Amino acid sequence: VLDLSADFRLKSAAVYQEFYEHEHPSPELLKQAAYGLPELHRDEIRNASLVACPGCYPTGILLGVAPALKKGLAKPDGIVVTSLSGVSGAGRKVADEFLFTECNESARAYGIPKHRHLSEIEQELSLLAGANVAISFAPHLVPLNRGIISTIYMELDANPDNALAVYREFYNGEPFVRVTPSLPDTKNVEATNYCDVSLRVDSRAHRLIVVTAIDNLTKGAAGQAVQCLNLVCGYEETTGLL
Amino acid sequence: VLDLSADFRLKSAAVYQEFYEHEHPSPELLKQAAYGLPELHRDEIRNASLVACPGCYPTGILLGVAPALKKGLAKPDGIVVTSLSGVSGAGRKVADEFLFTECNESARAYGIPKHRHLSEIEQELSLLAGANVAISFAPHLVPLNRGIISTIYMELDANPDNALAVYREFYNGEPFVRVTPSLPDTKNVEATNYCDVSLRVDSRAHRLIVVTAIDNLTKGAAGQAVQCLNLVCGYEETTGLL
Amino acid sequence: VLDLSADFRLKSAAVYQEFYEHEHPSPELLKQAAYGLPELHRDEIRNASLVACPGCYPTGILLGVAPALKKGLAKPDGIVVTSLSGVSGAGRKVADEFLFTECNESARAYGIPKHRHLSEIEQELSLLAGANVAISFAPHLVPLNRGIISTIYMELDANPDNALAVYREFYNGEPFVRVTPSLPDTKNVEATNYCDVSLRVDSRAHRLIVVTAIDNLTKGAAGQAVQCLNLVCGYEETTGLL
Amino acid sequence: VLDLSADFRLKSAAVYQEFYEHEHPSPELLKQAAYGLPELHRDEIRNASLVACPGCYPTGILLGVAPALKKGLAKPDGIVVTSLSGVSGAGRKVADEFLFTECNESARAYGIPKHRHLSEIEQELSLLAGANVAISFAPHLVPLNRGIISTIYMELDANPDNALAVYREFYNGEPFVRVTPSLPDTKNVEATNYCDVSLRVDSRAHRLIVVTAIDNLTKGAAGQAVQCLNLVCGYEETTGLL
Repeated sequence: VLDLSADFRLKSAAVYQEFYEHEHPSPELLKQAAYGLPELHRDEIRNASLVACPGCYPTGILLGVAPALKKGLAKPDGIVVTSLSGVSGAGRKVADEFLFTECNESARAYGIPKHRHLSEIEQELSLLAGANVAISFAPHLVPLNRGIISTIYMELDANPDNALAVYREFYNGEPFVRVTPSLPDTKNVEATNYCDVSLRVDSRAHRLIVVTAIDNLTKGAAGQAVQCLNLVCGYEETTGLL
Repeated sequence: VLDLSADFRLKSAAVYQEFYEHEHPSPELLKQAAYGLPELHRDEIRNASLVACPGCYPTGILLGVAPALKKGLAKPDGIVVTSLSGVSGAGRKVADEFLFTECNESARAYGIPKHRHLSEIEQELSLLAGANVAISFAPHLVPLNRGIISTIYMELDANPDNALAVYREFYNGEPFVRVTPSLPDTKNVEATNYCDVSLRVDSRAHRLIVVTAIDNLTKGAAGQAVQCLNLVCGYEETTGLL
Repeated sequence: VLDLSADFRLKSAAVYQEFYEHEHPSPELLKQAAYGLPELHRDEIRNASLVACPGCYPTGILLGVAPALKKGLAKPDGIVVTSLSGVSGAGRKVADEFLFTECNESARAYGIPKHRHLSEIEQELSLLAGANVAISFAPHLVPLNRGIISTIYMELDANPDNALAVYREFYNGEPFVRVTPSLPDTKNVEATNYCDVSLRVDSRAHRLIVVTAIDNLTKGAAGQAVQCLNLVCGYEETTGLL
Repeated sequence: VLDLSADFRLKSAAVYQEFYEHEHPSPELLKQAAYGLPELHRDEIRNASLVACPGCYPTGILLGVAPALKKGLAKPDGIVVTSLSGVSGAGRKVADEFLFTECNESARAYGIPKHRHLSEIEQELSLLAGANVAISFAPHLVPLNRGIISTIYMELDANPDNALAVYREFYNGEPFVRVTPSLPDTKNVEATNYCDVSLRVDSRAHRLIVVTAIDNLTKGAAGQAVQCLNLVCGYEETTGLL
């Protein structure tokens, strides 16, 4: 089963209840489910019968943070994340706040400070860091059809001179992650399964600033599900994907 | 003289040279100039013969940070700011990066980590805090004609239960700052001189998150200049402004 | 009474029933109502106790056609009209077709061949021409918040060398109609009560092509109602309008 | 040679000179070139060594008009065409009129009454009708990245009760033309080589109104060139195309 919903992304039924505000109906399945982010859980996914595909915000954020935490470039404390999402990130809900005239010529923050996706983001960051991680996360709605930019601020923990090289090495061979010197743009990943990643060292404030771009409808949703399907079924991982 | 350029916003010729990469031609004038943000420097502006009107990013950011620093809600260290700007924030430069087809369906970060406006932002924040302040600042370009959202993350330094009340009290009587419970939206300030401000306490990460919205062409530019003109000339401060 | 609805725009209860598909409940009031387009019915409006303000399409189309028909530049037969409307032209209806993701990156025709507003357009054109006029009208939805372009094709009936001068003369002294050599643009009338009008002579096909622009929320709606109110109450016609 | 420029689309060097305002440098090649619209010139293209691929406006307009003229539904006289084009229709010219802030929230007509593409449109329409055809054509710029809507008004010449069936029959088997009851939308053809076509009978004004949608960057440009390439090289006509 490839599940695009949020039902099996969390390992803990208690955290599920805290964020989704009702008891999890099948807590015994939570531990079986693989978190469907191939770049971080490829082997698990290959052997899973239940894959819980991550939401769009977690995908862009986790791929941006993972190398820094795993390779010791940044500290797990003090992480701040801003995301900018196109309107399809809200699904296709027919509500006045998503009408054209409400979204066009509008930029706005929402869901601060406790967006539901924060629970899976922190779960995965804690796994990466080997310690409890709590971040500040502010999503914003901007007038795009599709695309998410995530800008991640982390406190430096090492000489960052080769930060870009560390990221390139980390994602070496990954078919859907592109680490580039120039900052990413949603239009460059539109309708593709790519996650574009770049970074800057802010030496004045002693921070690493990582920026990622995905298409929330592809790498952030159905595209990633296809990527997982390919892994589960033993197909070439890139089959059917741009 | 009401100056909309960046030439007289900095007190220090050295900082000017660092950020603008040439020597300041009239350093003796720097100290005479009032920084044209009426909410923070009203009396200075009234008596100034040279008013250096702030840029659009500094306006939205400083009005968001000032109450927290002055009233001890947040620490001067560890401030992170994300801004989202409409395309007119770049002026009317005829360059391929600002063509419709390049900006529409595009969101992107730029100018990280050392945007020129950072120099005046940090100067003013340091004045507010009474200590040197260095922040992380990441501006983003989003497909709006006009409007800027600034989302500011600060470390809490006090019981924040009444943070909104502190902000309301701080801006009590200000004709162009509206402190609201709901998060601001650029479309609500379009073509007006308002700065809308709201905030959320992120108790999990122990931060105060403040969000402001201005129209970069009004409160962030000509509108604020008119507001300063009214002060200098002794007119009603709101004359000619929506 | 200033009525922004379509209830009293038609003189004929039978045409009302044909286009709105129910019997008119107060047919006796239809003849009392003035059609609230000041440029064509100023005196009637001044003396009316019921003013039926025209819809947004009729306003832009009638102001474009009137001089040509009244001054004999074009024939009343064979008129074709294309309009392009921003999404607020549909009101603020919460329906999937008006969601941001449905309208952004979308242009589409709708309501062909018998849009409801056609009834009042043809009524007024017939009055101008002194004969029954039937036109072809195709409205289109384009991704703007506000603004309507109407492009009108008419068969030439006279030497058109001075067509622009005829239009200028016709609207001489009108505070809210601007006749210009350059083709109009919705952004030039945004949030104003202006109707911009320009034209081209298509000598190859022997047609006059007139293009008008209005803001459907101002000259096409509330702005025009204020203009009518000023007339009814004897105020300066431009009071309260940009 | 597959030529995407306008150099070899016209059969007549005189018409070329009239519309492009300089003498054609190789008039002897004009007659050899096939007009690269496969739905109308498939056999010619297969055998051509020079294929002049049509511009984006001609593609959408000719595919909309052809069945009506060939099958006698409409008269060749009195044709009026409105087109709405996304900004990429202007290429990637770096000019102030194509800046984001100039195009966003803007709709405007341009190039009236004698757009350059009119020459090839009328050449092909005259071939279809077997008589000289002159049309009125008004292109408009709307704030889309890509896509063109063409709305075509023709005088009815026959019982139009089965007009949609006639169109379906005409395009039966065509891989890239979809005739549908519902009116087309640019977003439905985005990034594809499809031309969507629909129509309405305007019995009140005795006209047939046909609406087509293409992506100007695909069916209106490179996609159509690939389709021609496939024909010239004997590949499956749909190879490499969505």
